[in-house]
Amino acid sequence: MQPETDEIKSANQKFYDAFGALDIVTMGEIWEHSEAALCIHPGWQPLLGWELIRDSWQGIFDNATLMHFNIQYVNVAVLGDTGWVTCIENISSVLQGRASNFGVMATNIFVRGPAGWTMITHHASPSLS
Amino acid sequence: MQPETDEIKSANQKFYDAFGALDIVTMGEIWEHSEAALCIHPGWQPLLGWELIRDSWQGIFDNATLMHFNIQYVNVAVLGDTGWVTCIENISSVLQGRASNFGVMATNIFVRGPAGWTMITHHASPSLS
Repeated sequence: MQPETDEIKSANQKFYDAFGALDIVTMGEIWEHSEAALCIHPGWQPLLGWELIRDSWQGIFDNATLMHFNIQYVNVAVLGDTGWVTCIENISSVLQGRASNFGVMATNIFVRGPAGWTMITHHASPSLS
Repeated sequence: MQPETDEIKSANQKFYDAFGALDIVTMGEIWEHSEAALCIHPGWQPLLGWELIRDSWQGIFDNATLMHFNIQYVNVAVLGDTGWVTCIENISSVLQGRASNFGVMATNIFVRGPAGWTMITHHASPSLS
């Protein structure tokens, strides 16, 4: 296993920690701030570019009161300055006063820059099991 | 735009041509034959490793009689020997005698090897619009 694999998993965990904490500042540190950044929330159309993505997280965070993520890794790979993760997000959340547990499948792509690994793609989709 | 962008789009198109033609041989040429290969069909659990992935395509092809793909690109990126595409698959198909039109969102990751670009991740999920 390459040492970068752990770095990718750390970056991935930081993303879910920010998501769980509804922390838009840390979310901003994790994401690539470019037009190539792409985010697909479960069932949504793709959002391209950091500005749209940031607004979507703000909207999600404004409507959530608690999120807990238990991340189950399916695959982690690194090639050069690109890394990618496929994982199952086991989520417990309270949305608009209602508690629920559900699974989401995600593929996350990271790129290595001067500040370390940043997220450039997040594709999340409902897990049916 | 990097010249590799066109190569990634060609590899991506070859994948959808093989899918549309229900062509398991070409599908085998496109995919990375390793344990790191990962495939998520819409609503399925992730399949890891080429053998499981090949079996899944064979099963899909055995049950389909016609598929037409119109690919709408959302994003294409290349960094070193890794390339990735997010696209909307507009599909017309006949499955078990019934015709349908539907959209699927896909993120496809390719890696560059001696034989060119091969697919290492395919994450497809239902598009709700």
